[in-house]
Amino acid sequence: MISEKMMGLGKKRSVIREIFEYGNKRRQEIGAENVFDFSLGNPSIPAPEFVNETMKRLITEKDSVALHGYTSAQGALPVRQAISDHINKRFSIGATPDLLYMTCGAAASLTITLNALINSGDEVIVLAPFFPEYRVFAEKAGAEIKVVKCRENDLQIDFTALENALTKNTKAIIVNSPNNPSGVVLSEDTIKELAELLNKKSAEFGTDIYIIADEPYRELVYGDVEVPYIPSYYNNTVVCYSYSKSLSLPGERIGYIFVSPRLENCTDVYAAVCGAGRALGFVCAPSLLQYTVAECLGLTGDISVYEKNRNILYNALTEYGYTAAKPDGAFYLFIKSPEADANAFCERAKKYELLLVPGDDFGFPGYVRISYCVSTEMIEKSLPSFLKLIKEYR
Amino acid sequence: MISEKMMGLGKKRSVIREIFEYGNKRRQEIGAENVFDFSLGNPSIPAPEFVNETMKRLITEKDSVALHGYTSAQGALPVRQAISDHINKRFSIGATPDLLYMTCGAAASLTITLNALINSGDEVIVLAPFFPEYRVFAEKAGAEIKVVKCRENDLQIDFTALENALTKNTKAIIVNSPNNPSGVVLSEDTIKELAELLNKKSAEFGTDIYIIADEPYRELVYGDVEVPYIPSYYNNTVVCYSYSKSLSLPGERIGYIFVSPRLENCTDVYAAVCGAGRALGFVCAPSLLQYTVAECLGLTGDISVYEKNRNILYNALTEYGYTAAKPDGAFYLFIKSPEADANAFCERAKKYELLLVPGDDFGFPGYVRISYCVSTEMIEKSLPSFLKLIKEYR
Repeated sequence: MISEKMMGLGKKRSVIREIFEYGNKRRQEIGAENVFDFSLGNPSIPAPEFVNETMKRLITEKDSVALHGYTSAQGALPVRQAISDHINKRFSIGATPDLLYMTCGAAASLTITLNALINSGDEVIVLAPFFPEYRVFAEKAGAEIKVVKCRENDLQIDFTALENALTKNTKAIIVNSPNNPSGVVLSEDTIKELAELLNKKSAEFGTDIYIIADEPYRELVYGDVEVPYIPSYYNNTVVCYSYSKSLSLPGERIGYIFVSPRLENCTDVYAAVCGAGRALGFVCAPSLLQYTVAECLGLTGDISVYEKNRNILYNALTEYGYTAAKPDGAFYLFIKSPEADANAFCERAKKYELLLVPGDDFGFPGYVRISYCVSTEMIEKSLPSFLKLIKEYR
Repeated sequence: MISEKMMGLGKKRSVIREIFEYGNKRRQEIGAENVFDFSLGNPSIPAPEFVNETMKRLITEKDSVALHGYTSAQGALPVRQAISDHINKRFSIGATPDLLYMTCGAAASLTITLNALINSGDEVIVLAPFFPEYRVFAEKAGAEIKVVKCRENDLQIDFTALENALTKNTKAIIVNSPNNPSGVVLSEDTIKELAELLNKKSAEFGTDIYIIADEPYRELVYGDVEVPYIPSYYNNTVVCYSYSKSLSLPGERIGYIFVSPRLENCTDVYAAVCGAGRALGFVCAPSLLQYTVAECLGLTGDISVYEKNRNILYNALTEYGYTAAKPDGAFYLFIKSPEADANAFCERAKKYELLLVPGDDFGFPGYVRISYCVSTEMIEKSLPSFLKLIKEYR
C-alpha cells in the first residue's frame, strides 16, 4: 500500500554497508589494528583548520538572523558570485551567479539535475564502473539506465560501445572523473572524442544530449595530472560539484550545480534546476556552509596523505602481480580480481582480514574496489596480507 | 525536451516573492522604515545564544573527521536517541531512534514522507488554507491533491466536507497545526473527531489513511494553548518536524521525520522513508546541525516577541473591524478581506504601504495573510494604515 519501491530501497542493505558491519564485528573480535578495512569512501583527513576557523568566525561575527536565515533558493548571491568568479579564474568559462545553484552536496546536485532534465522514459547512460546510486537517482527521476562498460585495460571510454548505446531517447550521460570506484581520470583525448561523438549523434537525432559532469573528486588528483574541465569541451554540460571530499566535509552537505553558459537553452535548464530543487524539498543549501565555502575557495585538506597512500598501495600491489588501471585521483584503486568471481575473491581476502568491495555493484564484475582513504600505517601493515592473498592464485 | 514541469516551477515566481520584490523597490524609494512588509514568514528573532555557543564548542572540541563526516543516512544514533528520549518525555509515545529519520528541514521531511507513502494516482488531502508548496511536493511524488476547506469562522476542520473528500484512494491527509497561513491551532476535539472519522473510513475502505503532521510551528504557541500531539490520538501518523522556527535556524535545514510506533506497519513505513530519502538525494542531514540540535532540545528563541506582536496586531485589527480566526500559534494572522477579491484588497493596501499576501495561493480566496515575524515597532507604526484602509470600506 505504501511505495514498495522506496521500501525496497530502504530495506536493502548496500554491499559496502554489509562489509563495514562485518568489519565492526572483526574489530571487536581481534582488535581494530588487525582489520584492514578498505570498504568505505569517507575522507580520512580533517577539514582544513581554516574551514573550522571560518565557521566559528561567521557564527561570532555575523548577525544570527542573517547567518541562519533562509538564503534565496539558489543560494546566497554573494556566495554564488564568489564561486562563479572562482570558476572563471580557473576555467575562463563565463560562469555567472545566475547559472549556479547551491545544493546539499553531490547527491542532491545529481538528483536535482536529473529531475530537471528527465522526462519519463528518457535514457541516461552511465559508464561502468559507476557509483551505484546513479541508478537509484536516475530511475527515481523517471529515466531508464543504460550501462556502457569502459575499456578493461585503462578504464577510458569504449566509444564503439557508447555509440551503440546512444539513441534518440538518450537525454544524458553521467561522467565521473576522477572516478569512483577506480580513481581513473578521463584523458583530454577521451573528453574530446566524447564531445565529438555526442555532437554528431545529437545532430543526427535532432536532440540535445547533456553531459552531467559529477565532479566531487576534481581536487583530489596526484602528480601533474590535469582533469579536463568538460564545459570547455562540450557545450551541453551541467557540472555537479561537492565540497565533501575537497574540504573533508561530507556530513555537512554542501555543493553546487553549475549550468554551462555555453548550453544553448541554459536559462531554461537553470529554471528547471530551480524547479526540481523546489519539488524535491531542497529549500536552500545549509546557510552557514554556503558562507563558509565561499571563503575557502581553492583550499583542500592535506591530500598529500592520499597521494602517499596511492603510491604505496599501487606500487606494492602491481609488484605483487595485481593489475589495475593507474588511479590518478580520488582515493580508490580498482584491481582485477585474480579469479573471475570478485565476490569469491573478496570472501577469500577476509581470511587475511582484508575488507574489499566487489565490483559487481559498480557494474563491473571481476574487479574489486580498494578505498585508500585510511591511515598510511594501516596500508603498510596490510601489504603482507595482499601478498599472501595473491600467492594463493599462483 | 527537458522537464517542462520543473522548468515551469522554476520560472514561476511565487506571489510572496513578487510582493517582497515590490517591497524592496518601495524601501529604496521611501525608506525601509516607511514600508510595512508583512509578506515573509522568516523568523525575526535570533537563534538562542546557546545554539551558537554549542556550534562553536562542537567545532572546537569534536574531532573534525567525526564532526563533519557522514552520519548514518537516518542520522547519528546518539542524536536520534536524544531526540526520541525528548519526544517520550513530552508525549510518552514510545519513540525509538529506529523510527526517527533526521532531515534537511520540514520541506525535506514532507517530500521524503510523501515519496515513501505515495503510489502514482493516490490522493492526498490538504486542508485549506494550506502552505502552497504542499501541492508542489505531493504532485511531484505522484499524488493527486484534494483540497478541503476549513470552516470560515474558526478554521477548524469541516468534517462534512472532509468525509465527502475521503475515498479508497486517499493515502494521506496533511495536518498543519499551528497553521501557516492562519496561526490557528486545531483543538483537541477536532483532532479526536478527525481520528474517529479516519478510523471509520479506513475500516470502510479497507485501506490505511495516514496523517502527515507537519509541525514546524509546534513550539510557537501563546498563552496556555496546548497543541494536541497527533500520534497520541491517531495511530497511522507520521510527524514531520523542523527546528527552523523554534530555534530560528531556517537556513540551516535541520528537522526530522518520526514514524509513530503505533503505526501498524511502522517498520515498513520507516524503511520506505529511508528509501525515499536515498532516492531523492538526501545522504544525511547536515552533521554539525544534527549534533547541535541534540544539545538544544526544548530550547526556543525568545518567542515572547511573537506573542506581543500577535496581541498588538490581533487586538487592534479586530477593534478596527477586521475579522480573523484567533491565531494561537505560529506568526501569522489570516484576516477576512473586506471585499470579496483579496487581490484587489492587497492592491489597495499598498496605497498605505501595507504589504499583505492574498489567500488565493493558500487555497482560501477572500482572505489575507499577515506575517507578524517583524519588529514590534513596525507593527505599532503600521496600525494607522490598517485603520485608514478599512475605513475605505465603511
